[in-house]
Amino acid sequence: MRGDSEHVSVGVIGTGGMGGMHSENLHSRVPGARLVAVADVDAERAGRIAERCGGTVYEDGVDLIRDDSVEAVVIASPDPTHAPLVLECLRNEKPVLCEKPLADSAEAAREIVEAEVGLGRKLVQVGFMRRYDPQHVAVKEVLRAGTIGAPVLFKGWHRNADIHPGITSEWVVINATIHDIDSARWFIEEEIEEVYVRGINTAPKLGGDVWDLQLIQFSTTGGRLGTIETNVVSGYGYEVGVEVIGERGTVQVPPPSGAVVRRDFAISQRIEDGWLARFHTAYVVEMQAWIDGLLRGETLSGPDAWDGYASLVVADACIASLRSGAPQRVSRLEPPELYRRGVEVTR
Amino acid sequence: MRGDSEHVSVGVIGTGGMGGMHSENLHSRVPGARLVAVADVDAERAGRIAERCGGTVYEDGVDLIRDDSVEAVVIASPDPTHAPLVLECLRNEKPVLCEKPLADSAEAAREIVEAEVGLGRKLVQVGFMRRYDPQHVAVKEVLRAGTIGAPVLFKGWHRNADIHPGITSEWVVINATIHDIDSARWFIEEEIEEVYVRGINTAPKLGGDVWDLQLIQFSTTGGRLGTIETNVVSGYGYEVGVEVIGERGTVQVPPPSGAVVRRDFAISQRIEDGWLARFHTAYVVEMQAWIDGLLRGETLSGPDAWDGYASLVVADACIASLRSGAPQRVSRLEPPELYRRGVEVTR
Amino acid sequence: MRGDSEHVSVGVIGTGGMGGMHSENLHSRVPGARLVAVADVDAERAGRIAERCGGTVYEDGVDLIRDDSVEAVVIASPDPTHAPLVLECLRNEKPVLCEKPLADSAEAAREIVEAEVGLGRKLVQVGFMRRYDPQHVAVKEVLRAGTIGAPVLFKGWHRNADIHPGITSEWVVINATIHDIDSARWFIEEEIEEVYVRGINTAPKLGGDVWDLQLIQFSTTGGRLGTIETNVVSGYGYEVGVEVIGERGTVQVPPPSGAVVRRDFAISQRIEDGWLARFHTAYVVEMQAWIDGLLRGETLSGPDAWDGYASLVVADACIASLRSGAPQRVSRLEPPELYRRGVEVTR
Amino acid sequence: MRGDSEHVSVGVIGTGGMGGMHSENLHSRVPGARLVAVADVDAERAGRIAERCGGTVYEDGVDLIRDDSVEAVVIASPDPTHAPLVLECLRNEKPVLCEKPLADSAEAAREIVEAEVGLGRKLVQVGFMRRYDPQHVAVKEVLRAGTIGAPVLFKGWHRNADIHPGITSEWVVINATIHDIDSARWFIEEEIEEVYVRGINTAPKLGGDVWDLQLIQFSTTGGRLGTIETNVVSGYGYEVGVEVIGERGTVQVPPPSGAVVRRDFAISQRIEDGWLARFHTAYVVEMQAWIDGLLRGETLSGPDAWDGYASLVVADACIASLRSGAPQRVSRLEPPELYRRGVEVTR
Repeated sequence: MRGDSEHVSVGVIGTGGMGGMHSENLHSRVPGARLVAVADVDAERAGRIAERCGGTVYEDGVDLIRDDSVEAVVIASPDPTHAPLVLECLRNEKPVLCEKPLADSAEAAREIVEAEVGLGRKLVQVGFMRRYDPQHVAVKEVLRAGTIGAPVLFKGWHRNADIHPGITSEWVVINATIHDIDSARWFIEEEIEEVYVRGINTAPKLGGDVWDLQLIQFSTTGGRLGTIETNVVSGYGYEVGVEVIGERGTVQVPPPSGAVVRRDFAISQRIEDGWLARFHTAYVVEMQAWIDGLLRGETLSGPDAWDGYASLVVADACIASLRSGAPQRVSRLEPPELYRRGVEVTR
Repeated sequence: MRGDSEHVSVGVIGTGGMGGMHSENLHSRVPGARLVAVADVDAERAGRIAERCGGTVYEDGVDLIRDDSVEAVVIASPDPTHAPLVLECLRNEKPVLCEKPLADSAEAAREIVEAEVGLGRKLVQVGFMRRYDPQHVAVKEVLRAGTIGAPVLFKGWHRNADIHPGITSEWVVINATIHDIDSARWFIEEEIEEVYVRGINTAPKLGGDVWDLQLIQFSTTGGRLGTIETNVVSGYGYEVGVEVIGERGTVQVPPPSGAVVRRDFAISQRIEDGWLARFHTAYVVEMQAWIDGLLRGETLSGPDAWDGYASLVVADACIASLRSGAPQRVSRLEPPELYRRGVEVTR
Repeated sequence: MRGDSEHVSVGVIGTGGMGGMHSENLHSRVPGARLVAVADVDAERAGRIAERCGGTVYEDGVDLIRDDSVEAVVIASPDPTHAPLVLECLRNEKPVLCEKPLADSAEAAREIVEAEVGLGRKLVQVGFMRRYDPQHVAVKEVLRAGTIGAPVLFKGWHRNADIHPGITSEWVVINATIHDIDSARWFIEEEIEEVYVRGINTAPKLGGDVWDLQLIQFSTTGGRLGTIETNVVSGYGYEVGVEVIGERGTVQVPPPSGAVVRRDFAISQRIEDGWLARFHTAYVVEMQAWIDGLLRGETLSGPDAWDGYASLVVADACIASLRSGAPQRVSRLEPPELYRRGVEVTR
Repeated sequence: MRGDSEHVSVGVIGTGGMGGMHSENLHSRVPGARLVAVADVDAERAGRIAERCGGTVYEDGVDLIRDDSVEAVVIASPDPTHAPLVLECLRNEKPVLCEKPLADSAEAAREIVEAEVGLGRKLVQVGFMRRYDPQHVAVKEVLRAGTIGAPVLFKGWHRNADIHPGITSEWVVINATIHDIDSARWFIEEEIEEVYVRGINTAPKLGGDVWDLQLIQFSTTGGRLGTIETNVVSGYGYEVGVEVIGERGTVQVPPPSGAVVRRDFAISQRIEDGWLARFHTAYVVEMQAWIDGLLRGETLSGPDAWDGYASLVVADACIASLRSGAPQRVSRLEPPELYRRGVEVTR
């Protein structure tokens, strides 16, 4: 990154829901960014984004990465493309913000970590946007201030209103729970050591063997505990929350922020219907922080490749547990020197 | 009252909604009480209560008061009967708990005050049950503890879901707002000195000239301020609340206490539909405190005749203001020696 | 019970914190009850209660049970005495309300179940008072109404401000978690089939091997899931809560009910310091319901011996899990015909 | 404004707390804006802002307005300078966003309205930023949706933690209450017709004759009612809120959005200490909306000169009322054709 530049020229790969949203944010909500390229196998879809937000259109993400005018890359294409595209960014030494999961397997993510270690510097940030959500940040700040003592127990809940048929129990872990795994690691600041996953099918339309509600109990290297509810067919709305119990108190995300309405013998507030609405601010703040960091010459400003890799290792253990029906040990997670700044990397 | 007795023998005059409820409470929720007589001009209705809760049936409240087996009297008959029945209790030197308003005019209430002063002791308690509501008591306790400094501003709101046609703007003051007037006097511990009442008709079915929503601004002898919303056709439910602003903070009744339900993209709690549901506990605690006091030899344990009188004097000023459309001075309220223990009488 | 009687004559065994509270409630808050006897190995302590609330004083609970004037018995003596005293009540065919746990082992509780089956009728109620707590009842009512569909996931939390040194990890299960086990069975209306308990020591003063915070993950016979947090040294106050996730929504106990105070750049509400304050109302309602039932000729009105036994069987599995460090199957729970009315017995 | 431009070149007059904040927002939070000039009588202070955010430095705001490179102007200098500077903008036909109050008297504001009418188009927006606060917008949306029927009663509260000595009762109206006046007009969508202001001195340090707490009762041209609490020495924090009562329900700003902390026998959330923290988002959104509008060729996107004038006319009536101690009629407010789109102008 040229530290003297006033703007960062960004290319976005993938222009579906997430990529479209990131493009819009880069274009109209993030000063300091300039959207200069978009790529999508569906070139027409990419074209529609480019029309509104600007930028050259590519069909192949690799071409976008190699475009000299592209200084930094956002990856929001399908999961299996993440690792190869991130590796291409590393080969071109371009900072990259990759949507979660970092790769479609822990092994593939490990390769990225090793590539960065080979390079000797970190260029990869992973899109765990909750770390930028004001509600989650407020919880983190209370923990940092020591208000409730050291954290001893983590409770996460993560509910989608509904999900498209065709998903599998493993998909729930890799695509939904992975956020909560990162959340747990971020708040507890220890690695997860053991997981025990139980599930239940509440939505027959998914097929009776798909666990759309999963309950995970975990412990960490320092003996802390945690529980995660992932509920992809809550039936009522989209909600993500966390409560952290500390040695002398607890802290929890604030209550819903909608207007308080009294009507028909009830007092109520609206609940969002999906993550784009719920995490709108988080996505903008995440992008702004990444761009601001780049302008200051920092190659990343949040969760790094190690966080992407570690969360996938834990996800693998979760999948093993849901298959075996038994608690599962997580493979030992020992970060290379490059990542030895603890789990917490939003600095 | 015979201080050595294990039970107080109580007679209830009026067996409509309120009298029926008080009879039930005396019969089955208030240890130390024995319902020994009920009176109603509708003797059949009284008979039904007596069947379930016990007691001799009278058609005339005066006969009930004179019954030697009746040690204490509850009055829940229509408003115009309150004052004559209370005076009869005083003539018989029997403690009486009279529903609000104490009389149908301030003059009639004044007569009661004078009768008590003549007797030299207080036998009359007025049914301002909010002083026994756990939510209101919690607010009072914070004020007593000095947590927010001296009170400087009172805010009351009082909403009925709906009201029967046929009421008048004056009726709203005498029957609804009178509770809030007592509330203000109890929390601020000063007399109300000036009131300014504005109103609006929101429910055409009441007739366009009936102010079903009234907003009162008032000041007190010590220069404190207040505002009261009385809304007899809120359309959504029954709610009563108070916030008191002090010199260095505020205190407010707690949020609704119903179960928190998430469904259909909303988080909600139920709101009660009427005062019997909302103040169920308050009515029981009020009766229990009165009975417990009687058993200890105290003739009353809550708001007294002076409170009943003062609230009517303020209500009169409110009615004058709503008629004149101008702020109205309240007649000077100077309690006789007998009542000189400040406004706050729940001791 | 003589159905025609106006009062039930009750004897209370054990006059410590719980027994004293029950005696007070019987004496002054529960119409229909008459406290006629109290027993305690510390006769002096029993005497002090008797002085205030009435009743003959016994040193031996067995003598109290055999006293002909005692119609019904409350047991609040130390845990190991529960089973023998309950069995004595059964031998004398007297209804008994026994504090939890019903016995100090599942085997001893099983003996009680068998004695009742032998008798052919149920005389034993267990003191799971949460079933009478207005907050818990509100949650139950929402479930009953079908508002959120069938329950699929139970979340319970149970926090004490602090605990006396000398306790063990097993004590936490038997004395604290047992409430949550009953709660889970009551809300889910299925038996618990598997438990996995993890723990952590957060309070060094208890000795490093005592798990003062325990996290339990469980599944039920119908495949529902649950998690329970028992935290006996929360450090901040006493709180008990439950959230039930259903097929199309969730329901949760209401927020704290204290006055809302704004001061010093914070908005706050008080949290209770212990169960006597938090469950004051529940204890009164529990006793009133038991007495009212007895007056109507019903020998119990809440959780029965089977509930007492089943909760101990689950507690045993929890202890086995915390010792083995592995998920533990719960012994099969098949209620005898006498108890075949489902888990929910508050009828 | 050149509709084809990618950026708006903005000059900011006044670089104190508000002007500095607006400069920062224009520089680093509002894409589409370019800060090209800053002016302040304290040129050194202006220089410090220019160093960080860019722009030519002027000592005289008039010079900044006349600078050809300045396309749009933000005025955040002292109140008495507002009107002359706004008029200069109109003479130069440049869009201007002027901090409230629009002028230091209703007469001066009237001159601006007349100048715009002369020009035949609206160039002036007034900085009533609450109209962009997500909490207030949420309330407005509920009203727009008709969820609670037509508004009948407005309740506003506005509390500062503390205020500098030297203020007057009139200052409180013109500088604090004016926000609430605009809020009431925006929510009720009617003009205020009568006001009655009472006040109290709660902070002796201000001098006993300064009313630091003012309570206003008002009615509108359509007979709606309202009450406003302005409390400039609340002692506990900064809070602004509104509740609107409609024909069949109510709507209220959401509860505080800070993390929920349990500690020391209390559950609590932080309250902000001032408006910059509380309305941080509102100020950014306000600026973004103004800039986005300018880029689209709209000369304003929010409250206009008429709103600025009308709020001052109501403020004058409030001051007259606090001086006379009587309800005060507001001068008739009949907007010229140019402003005839109702009170609500965030379009």
